[in-house]
Amino acid sequence: MPRRKYDFEVPVLGEARVKSPIQMSKTYGDKIVNYVREDEYILYDVEVDKGEELPEADSSFCLEKAGPREKIYFHPGHVHAGIVTCGGLCPGLNNVIRSIVRTLWYQYGVRRITGIRNGYRGFLPQYDLPIMELNPEVVDDIHYMGGSMLGSSRGGGDISEIVDAIERLNLNMLFTIGGDGTTKGALAIADEVERRNLKVSIIGIPKTIDNDLSFIQRSFGFETAVSKAVESVYGAHIEAKDAINGIGIVKLMGRESGFIAAHTALAMSVVNFVLIPEIPFDLEGEKGLMNQLKKRLAEKHRAVIIVAEGAGQELLDEINETDLSGNKKLANIGLFLKDKIGDYFQEEGIEVNIKYIDPSYLIRSTSADPNDSIYCLRLGAQAVHAAMAGKTRALISMMNDRFVLVPMKMAVSKRNFVDPEGSLWRDVLQATRMPLTMKN
Amino acid sequence: MPRRKYDFEVPVLGEARVKSPIQMSKTYGDKIVNYVREDEYILYDVEVDKGEELPEADSSFCLEKAGPREKIYFHPGHVHAGIVTCGGLCPGLNNVIRSIVRTLWYQYGVRRITGIRNGYRGFLPQYDLPIMELNPEVVDDIHYMGGSMLGSSRGGGDISEIVDAIERLNLNMLFTIGGDGTTKGALAIADEVERRNLKVSIIGIPKTIDNDLSFIQRSFGFETAVSKAVESVYGAHIEAKDAINGIGIVKLMGRESGFIAAHTALAMSVVNFVLIPEIPFDLEGEKGLMNQLKKRLAEKHRAVIIVAEGAGQELLDEINETDLSGNKKLANIGLFLKDKIGDYFQEEGIEVNIKYIDPSYLIRSTSADPNDSIYCLRLGAQAVHAAMAGKTRALISMMNDRFVLVPMKMAVSKRNFVDPEGSLWRDVLQATRMPLTMKN
Amino acid sequence: MPRRKYDFEVPVLGEARVKSPIQMSKTYGDKIVNYVREDEYILYDVEVDKGEELPEADSSFCLEKAGPREKIYFHPGHVHAGIVTCGGLCPGLNNVIRSIVRTLWYQYGVRRITGIRNGYRGFLPQYDLPIMELNPEVVDDIHYMGGSMLGSSRGGGDISEIVDAIERLNLNMLFTIGGDGTTKGALAIADEVERRNLKVSIIGIPKTIDNDLSFIQRSFGFETAVSKAVESVYGAHIEAKDAINGIGIVKLMGRESGFIAAHTALAMSVVNFVLIPEIPFDLEGEKGLMNQLKKRLAEKHRAVIIVAEGAGQELLDEINETDLSGNKKLANIGLFLKDKIGDYFQEEGIEVNIKYIDPSYLIRSTSADPNDSIYCLRLGAQAVHAAMAGKTRALISMMNDRFVLVPMKMAVSKRNFVDPEGSLWRDVLQATRMPLTMKN
Amino acid sequence: MPRRKYDFEVPVLGEARVKSPIQMSKTYGDKIVNYVREDEYILYDVEVDKGEELPEADSSFCLEKAGPREKIYFHPGHVHAGIVTCGGLCPGLNNVIRSIVRTLWYQYGVRRITGIRNGYRGFLPQYDLPIMELNPEVVDDIHYMGGSMLGSSRGGGDISEIVDAIERLNLNMLFTIGGDGTTKGALAIADEVERRNLKVSIIGIPKTIDNDLSFIQRSFGFETAVSKAVESVYGAHIEAKDAINGIGIVKLMGRESGFIAAHTALAMSVVNFVLIPEIPFDLEGEKGLMNQLKKRLAEKHRAVIIVAEGAGQELLDEINETDLSGNKKLANIGLFLKDKIGDYFQEEGIEVNIKYIDPSYLIRSTSADPNDSIYCLRLGAQAVHAAMAGKTRALISMMNDRFVLVPMKMAVSKRNFVDPEGSLWRDVLQATRMPLTMKN
Repeated sequence: MPRRKYDFEVPVLGEARVKSPIQMSKTYGDKIVNYVREDEYILYDVEVDKGEELPEADSSFCLEKAGPREKIYFHPGHVHAGIVTCGGLCPGLNNVIRSIVRTLWYQYGVRRITGIRNGYRGFLPQYDLPIMELNPEVVDDIHYMGGSMLGSSRGGGDISEIVDAIERLNLNMLFTIGGDGTTKGALAIADEVERRNLKVSIIGIPKTIDNDLSFIQRSFGFETAVSKAVESVYGAHIEAKDAINGIGIVKLMGRESGFIAAHTALAMSVVNFVLIPEIPFDLEGEKGLMNQLKKRLAEKHRAVIIVAEGAGQELLDEINETDLSGNKKLANIGLFLKDKIGDYFQEEGIEVNIKYIDPSYLIRSTSADPNDSIYCLRLGAQAVHAAMAGKTRALISMMNDRFVLVPMKMAVSKRNFVDPEGSLWRDVLQATRMPLTMKN
Repeated sequence: MPRRKYDFEVPVLGEARVKSPIQMSKTYGDKIVNYVREDEYILYDVEVDKGEELPEADSSFCLEKAGPREKIYFHPGHVHAGIVTCGGLCPGLNNVIRSIVRTLWYQYGVRRITGIRNGYRGFLPQYDLPIMELNPEVVDDIHYMGGSMLGSSRGGGDISEIVDAIERLNLNMLFTIGGDGTTKGALAIADEVERRNLKVSIIGIPKTIDNDLSFIQRSFGFETAVSKAVESVYGAHIEAKDAINGIGIVKLMGRESGFIAAHTALAMSVVNFVLIPEIPFDLEGEKGLMNQLKKRLAEKHRAVIIVAEGAGQELLDEINETDLSGNKKLANIGLFLKDKIGDYFQEEGIEVNIKYIDPSYLIRSTSADPNDSIYCLRLGAQAVHAAMAGKTRALISMMNDRFVLVPMKMAVSKRNFVDPEGSLWRDVLQATRMPLTMKN
Repeated sequence: MPRRKYDFEVPVLGEARVKSPIQMSKTYGDKIVNYVREDEYILYDVEVDKGEELPEADSSFCLEKAGPREKIYFHPGHVHAGIVTCGGLCPGLNNVIRSIVRTLWYQYGVRRITGIRNGYRGFLPQYDLPIMELNPEVVDDIHYMGGSMLGSSRGGGDISEIVDAIERLNLNMLFTIGGDGTTKGALAIADEVERRNLKVSIIGIPKTIDNDLSFIQRSFGFETAVSKAVESVYGAHIEAKDAINGIGIVKLMGRESGFIAAHTALAMSVVNFVLIPEIPFDLEGEKGLMNQLKKRLAEKHRAVIIVAEGAGQELLDEINETDLSGNKKLANIGLFLKDKIGDYFQEEGIEVNIKYIDPSYLIRSTSADPNDSIYCLRLGAQAVHAAMAGKTRALISMMNDRFVLVPMKMAVSKRNFVDPEGSLWRDVLQATRMPLTMKN
Repeated sequence: MPRRKYDFEVPVLGEARVKSPIQMSKTYGDKIVNYVREDEYILYDVEVDKGEELPEADSSFCLEKAGPREKIYFHPGHVHAGIVTCGGLCPGLNNVIRSIVRTLWYQYGVRRITGIRNGYRGFLPQYDLPIMELNPEVVDDIHYMGGSMLGSSRGGGDISEIVDAIERLNLNMLFTIGGDGTTKGALAIADEVERRNLKVSIIGIPKTIDNDLSFIQRSFGFETAVSKAVESVYGAHIEAKDAINGIGIVKLMGRESGFIAAHTALAMSVVNFVLIPEIPFDLEGEKGLMNQLKKRLAEKHRAVIIVAEGAGQELLDEINETDLSGNKKLANIGLFLKDKIGDYFQEEGIEVNIKYIDPSYLIRSTSADPNDSIYCLRLGAQAVHAAMAGKTRALISMMNDRFVLVPMKMAVSKRNFVDPEGSLWRDVLQATRMPLTMKN
C-alpha cells in the first residue's frame, strides 16, 4: 500500500532577510548551531511495515520543524502583533497568550502587542470592545487563572470588517488561538489580507479541548481536562457505590470524538461503560445498553457510565423526529440517558439510584496543570518564531513529540477520531471490561 | 432579659461501675487526672451583657463534656457495637466509622463490631443486605475514599423490625451517623428498646453537610464541602468573566439554611449575589434580583450568583400553583433562575451568556480534607467514650470549641439558621457588596 | 476553686461620636439591630463544674465582642491607615491585608491606606524601602498567592524612629499582622505614640503558624499549615513503608508548642511517634525513643516520626555543651535525631533506611485554603471595625467561636501549650498508639 | 550525513503458536484487524533533512510496535508471572503493577501471579522476604497510594541465586520495573536463564524519575514529578519575594541529566537560574553564578535557583579533594551552593536571606497524576502482551507517541541528556532569561 500523500508546504510572506536578534549559544562550538534550518523536517507518518520502501523526504509526507530561524522576515521594530482567543474556554489559554507576549517582547524586542477582546468580535466596530495593550507586566500572573484574559466568544463575523480593523490597527501579525471554526476564519482572513496585498502573518495555536484536530499529537489543555474529568468520575463512583443499585452518569465533552471520555476511563478504573460518538450503540435488545446495565447491576449492584456529549446522536435524532421539535440544540444525551435508564428500571421493577454529573464548565474553566503549562509556553514560543520568520496560514503543532508547522488548510481538512480498531480503544475495552459492541 | 433555659441532661443506661481499660497518664502527677469527670460542664450560651448575673452551673444551660470516663457501664468483652450511616453522602463518613472502630478495638478491647449496610434499611430482613464485620484492618484505608464504606440510604423503616434486628444481632451499642431524620429514628428506636427493657446505648454523630443542626458549632464535612464548592464558584467566575455579559450561576446545597452558600461566598470574593432560604427575595421590581443583575451587568459586564437549593421556594410555589403540577420535587431553583434570567434579558434585548453549574454530587462524594479528618477522628473517639460510659440518646457535638454531649431530643427540637442580623451574614453583605435586601 | 481573673478591658482612644457610614439592615424590624453594642461580652472560660457559682459578667473574665459599632471614633475622611506584616510567612497574610483594605475602602470610605514594606523595617529610613499605596484594585488578586504582598522581616527597630515615621506619614491607624514579638513591638509603639500625645489606633491580627498564642482559639493559617504538613507525613509513610526497615522523619514547625505536630498526627493515622516541646523524652533506656523504635521496627518493619522543631531541646543542650559551640541556632532536632537513629541502629547491627523531610518553607509559603480564607477575611473586617471605633492596643481573636477583642498586654503575657493532660494530646496518644511516656 | 544505525531486533523465546484468548473486535469488518502484526514497525528517528534518502524499513532504524499478537507463545494456564520493583520510588509504580496483574488475569486468564518483595532482594533466601500472591482484588485500590505495594530496594544480588529462586518459584515470566541498573540486572538474569535452558520471558518497564533513559520519549512518573516539583519552586519564589534579597534554592532530582529541572523551570516562570549536570558553570568570575546572582539581586532583589542534584559535580570534586574525605556520597550540591552563596554575599556585605528546599522524597512518594495513571496502565498492558507473545530482554517504551519494544541491550547502551543545543534548553533559556553560559 503506497504511503498517503499530503501537502505540508507552509506558505511564507516573503524572503527572510533580517538577522534574528535572538542570541544563540556559541559555547559548544564555533558554529551557531541551534537555530532551526529551513530544511529540517519531521516525518509525519511513522508507522511502517517491515521492508517497506520509504520515499525521499519532502513536504508530501514531512512537516516543517518549528523553531527560531537565523533569518527572519519582520524587523522587530516594525511589528505590531495581535492576539485573539475564540470559542469555548480551555485550560491554558492564558499561558499561550503570556508566552506569545513574552517571546515577542523579550526575545525579539517587539513592543507593540495588542489583545483583541472576545474573539473575532473584538475586531467588529459594532460591539465597541476596547483593545488591550499587552506587555510582560500585564500578562505576568495571568497563567494562575483559568479562562482567557482576552475573553472569548463563538462565531466569526464579516471578514471584510475584520480585515478593515486589522488595517486600522496596522497589525502585521495575528495569532489566533481557537479550534476548527477559528482556523477556517483565519484562512478567510488570510485570503482577504492577500487580496488587499497586505503582509500579515497569520499563525494559529490549535485549541480543542476535545483533542479532535488532525495533525496534532495532543492539543493544549487536554491533559488538564482529563485530570479534572477524573474527579467527576470519582464522585460518580462513590455515589454509585454507596447507594442501592447506584448508577453514576458523567457527561463529558466530545462533540465529534470521544478522546476525553476514553482517556478519563483509562485514568479511573471504575468506569463500566464509555459511550462515544465514534461507536454507535443500541439501548434495547440483547446487546443494548439497558440489558448490559441490568447484568452489571445484578452482579455488582452499581455502575458508572461516561458519555461524551456527541455520543448516541442517532438515538436522539429519533427522539427529535418523534417530537417534531427539530431543535438539535436541546438534545442532551446525558439527560436523555438518565431518563431512559430511570424509565427502563422502573418498568423492570428494579430500584435504582441515578446520580447525574455534568462537569463541563468546571473542566473548561480550570487553569492549566504544570505539564500543560509547559506545553503552552512552548507552543506560544514556536508561534512567535514562525510569525517572525514570515510563515503564515500555519498552525503550531506537536507531532511525533516534535514541534512542527502544519498548514491551516491541511488541519481543517479532516478531524481526528478515536479509532475503534486502534490501541487507545483497545485499552479502554480492556480497562472497563465493557462489551466489544452494544449494537445488536 | 433572662437566659433561655434548656434541658441538656443526658440519659444513662445505668450506673457506671466498670474500671476503664484506657490507661491514662500518671507521668505528670500522682492522680490520674485526664479522665473526664461527670460534673465537668461546658457553658452553652457564652454571649452575655456586661453586668449580667449568671446562674449556678446546671444542665439547664450547660452541656456535659465528652471524653473518657474512669468508670464505664459496659464490660468491653460484652459489647457488640453496630454502626449505621444514613441519608445523603457527606465528606468524613468513613473517617468517623474508622475512628469508632479503632477506638472500640484499641482503646477498649471491644472485638465485636458490626457495620449495618445502607442505612436503617440494613436492619430490615426484606432487603437482605449482608452485615459487615468490622475491625481495624478492614477500616484501615477507608478514609482515603469519599462516601461511606457501609453505603447509605434515605428514610427509616418499621421501628419494631429494626429493634427485632438489634435483638437478633445482640447489639448493645448503636452508633447512628446521620442528620435530623436519622436522629428522630434513633429516638424512636431508643423508645422501643426501652419498652423491651433492653440495654442498648444509642449515640449519634450528627451529619449535616448543610451545617444546619442546632447545638453543634460545626458539622463534620462542612468545611470540606465549602472548599469543594469554592472550585465551582471559581469556574463560574472564569466563565462569566470571559463571556460577553457572562452570568455564572452555582447551585449549592442548603435545603433550609444557607451556611454553605454564605461561607463559599466569603471564601471567594468574586460572588455578587447569594440567595439563601433564610432571606426572601423578589425577582421583579426596583429592588428585585433582575433589576439588580441588570445594574451589575451594566457596570461590570459579568455576575456570579450562588443559590442555595432551598432559596426562593416561595417563587417556585407560585410556579407550581400555576402549572398545577403540585410536584414539589421538580422545583429546582437553580434551573428556574437560569430560565427566568434568560427570559428577562431576552425581553430586555440584552445579550447574556448564562453558565449554570450544579456541583452537589461532586461535593458530597469527596473525601474529608485534613481538618475534617481530624474532627471526624475526634468525634468518633468521643462517641465511643460516651457509649462505653452508658450514655444514650445523645449526640457528640462541638460547642464553644469543646466536645460535648447533646441530648438527641434537644438536637431535633430546632434547626440552625443563618441569622440575617448576625455577623456571618453581615460579613457576606460586606464581601459581596450585594444589596441589603432584594424585597421590594 | 475560684475562677481565674484576667484584665480584658480594651483601651480606647476617646469617645466614639461619629455616626458609622456602614448601613445596617432595617428589613427585619424597625430598630437597627446588627451593630455590636459596647456591652456585648463573650465569656472566656466556659469550662465549669456542675453547681459552680458564676460571677457577674465583667471584663475580669469576659472578652469584648468584635464587630461594627454604631458610633465610631474616626471620621473616615481623616483616616490614614498603615498595614505592616512581620516575622515568618504564614498562609493567609494576603487575605488579611486584602480584607483590611476592602473593609476600610468599601465599608467606611477610607481612601488613604499605606502598606509598609518588610515589617517594621519599612518604617526605618536607613533601609529606604518604598511604601505602597493600597486600594481594592491593587489587592484584588493577591489572595491567590502565598506570602505577603508587603514582604516581611524579622525583628523590630528603634521605636522612636518608627513613631517618627508614623508621624511623618500622618498615620492614625496601624494594623500589625504578626506574632508575639510583633505584638510587643506594637505595645512599645503604642507607648511612644501616647507619650507624644498622638491618636493612633494600633490593632493587631495575631499571626502564629504554630497556633501558640493565648486567648485565641485558632490562629489564621494554622489549618492550611496542617493540611500541607499532612502531605509530607504521607510521603514519609510511603517512603518508610516501601523500604526495608524504613523510618520516615518529618520535622514540622513548633518552636515552643506542638500543635502542628499533634494535629498533623491526628489527620494522618500513619504516625507512630510525635515529639513535641511540651513532652520531654529520653533517647536511651528502656522507655527511651530508640528502644521504642526498635520494638516498632521488629513488629512492623517501618515507622513514621513527627518532630516539632522545638522538641527535645534538652537533648540538644547537652550536645551544645559538649561541643562548646554555644550556638543554639545550629541545633536542629530533626537532623540530630536522624543521625542518632542512624548511629543507634548501626551499632545494633540492624539495617534501617531513614528518610528525612523538612517541609517548613513549603508550608509557610502556601496560600490559604478556603476555610482559612474565610477566617482571614473576617478577622480583617473585625480589625477595621475595632480601629474605626477607636479601640487600640488590642488583637482580633476568636474565642468560643466568636470574634472578640483581646488586649495586647494579655496576649503577650503567656503562651499556649499542648496540655499533656488535655483532650488533644489524649486523642493523639490514642491515634498513634505511642507510649504514654518516653521518659525513663 | 548517513542515518545512524541501531540494532532494534527484539529477541523471542520461540515461535508463537497459541491462539490469543483476547477477543478482538469483529464489528467493523470481517477480518480481525486490531491485533498487532509482527511486521508493524515504528520509525525511530523522525528528524530528516529535506531531500534526504530514507532506507528500507528494518530493525536498524525501526522499532517493533507493541500490542497484543494474534498468536502467543505461552499457554495462559502454564504461566506463572513474577513482578519486581527496584530502585528509588517513582510515581506510578502501583499503577504499573496493577495493570500487569489485571491484564494477565482478565485478558489472558493467567491465575498465578507473584509479587517479589523489595527488589531483587526478594529473590534472595538470606533476606527471608515473603512473596505476595497477586490478583485483581489485591491490587484493586493500590493506585490511590504512592510508592510500590511490593516495596523496593537498591542493588542487585547474586545472579545465580536469583535464577535459583526463579526456578524454585517456577516463574516463566518476569516483569522488572526499574532503571538502568535494574535493566542490566535483568539482562544478567536473562543470560543465566538461557545458560540453564529455561524459557523465561523477561520484560522491563523502564522507571526513571529523571527521564534519562534513551529510546523512551517519556518515562512514567516524570510528569507527576514535575508537577510536584513546581510546588516547591512556587514556595521558593514566595519566600524569596517576601524577604529582603531573598534567594530561594530548590534542589531537584537529576543525577546525570536535568530534565526535571528544565521542565520545572518551564512550568513556573519564576525561575532565574537552572543548574543541570549537562551544563557546567563557574561560581566565580565575571560570568560565574555569584556575579550573575549579584546582578539579579541588584535589579530585582530576589532570585530563584533550581539545581539538579548532579549539577556542578566538578565544583564538589575540588571540595572533596581539598578536604580529603573522598566520600562522594556526602557531596550535596544544594547545601554546597547554599553555603557558598551565603559566604559570598557576607563577604560582599550584602544582606541576603536564603531559603533552601529539598523536596525529593515528597516528589518520589506521590501517587501518579491522571495522565501518568493512563500511561502506566497502558505500559503495563503492553508489557503483558509482549511477554505472552514470547518476547524477552525488551523494554516497553513510547517513541514518537506509539508504544514500542526496545531491546534492553540498546536501552542500557546510552543515557538521555538535555541537549544544550536543543529546543528544550533553548526554551528554558528564553523562559528564565538566564545567561547563555556561566562559564568564564
